Amino acid sequence: MTGSSAKRLYVALIHHPVIDKNGETIASAVTNLDLHDIARACKTYGVNGYYVITPLEDQMVLVNRILGHWITGVGGRYNPTRQQALELVRVRATVAEMIGEISEAEGCRPKTVATTARRHAGSLSYRRLREMLDEAVPIVLAFGTAWGLSDTFMAEADFILDPLTGAGTYNHLSVRSAVAIILDRALGG
Amino acid sequence: MTGSSAKRLYVALIHHPVIDKNGETIASAVTNLDLHDIARACKTYGVNGYYVITPLEDQMVLVNRILGHWITGVGGRYNPTRQQALELVRVRATVAEMIGEISEAEGCRPKTVATTARRHAGSLSYRRLREMLDEAVPIVLAFGTAWGLSDTFMAEADFILDPLTGAGTYNHLSVRSAVAIILDRALGG
Repeated sequence: MTGSSAKRLYVALIHHPVIDKNGETIASAVTNLDLHDIARACKTYGVNGYYVITPLEDQMVLVNRILGHWITGVGGRYNPTRQQALELVRVRATVAEMIGEISEAEGCRPKTVATTARRHAGSLSYRRLREMLDEAVPIVLAFGTAWGLSDTFMAEADFILDPLTGAGTYNHLSVRSAVAIILDRALGG
Repeated sequence: MTGSSAKRLYVALIHHPVIDKNGETIASAVTNLDLHDIARACKTYGVNGYYVITPLEDQMVLVNRILGHWITGVGGRYNPTRQQALELVRVRATVAEMIGEISEAEGCRPKTVATTARRHAGSLSYRRLREMLDEAVPIVLAFGTAWGLSDTFMAEADFILDPLTGAGTYNHLSVRSAVAIILDRALGG
């Protein structure tokens, strides 16, 4: 297939299972700008859906309140482009729920691609990721909040993506920046 | 020269002169996460300095208080990688002051490259930007907050960079995402 075939890419921002500063598995809090910045990047690059995964009920309520403001509330009238971006957001309690939903929509189970700042043996190159998207493979790109995705999540993912590398050993991008860069590498013209 | 020569790149986040929703020239407010996310991206990609330009005295005080917390205060002990990134930030009142300071440090006036979401005739390609950096040309990449850099600023810039393009006509990245992607295109491995 060629690069013009429809891409089947989803982005998942994971708040559980992720690790804290000490390596313990936690459920992190949702950050307002993660919703906005990542939704805008997803909309710009033509991502099919942006899943926000949190098992915490109060966090689900919070996210849905923010989305309501921008999608059906006054925010959408003030800034319609923000509305269009945030319409991509789907809040779900678990990764399994997301995978089930995407499987149903796509007619097959999507491949999960975990992102990390650390190098892993046999990791997926950006060139191969682009090829898989060109081949219309449904893919979920998973990003961890806090100190990153848990080891269990990483072990269960179908692929681990090459880490982004900059100029030296410092490699502490925000998750918002990492999503933007990786979408550009995967889908940018 | 080769790609291994020292890059002489600076990032400027402009709060004046920028335009508002109606195209009027304004001075915008500083956003806390613009400091963090952009400083972290600059540090990751080896940028020489990150200038935050605002003529508003209360905003300069605010930024310096935030920087103090992370550089010499408790924030730096809690998260040393944040400290290393924020040490790149320099708050200045005007673009002219920044240009004067960089000219003195580099021994010649830097080229200014304005960024925008709109297409301009004769704009600079990312390939040519990388070449200029490889040739050790000192460059300031300027990003506008609010609704973007003013026409006056654009007209006075040495170059206007090609806009980022995604999958369709939607093109409303946050400035944080735009900086991350453009640094990756200019300096990423």
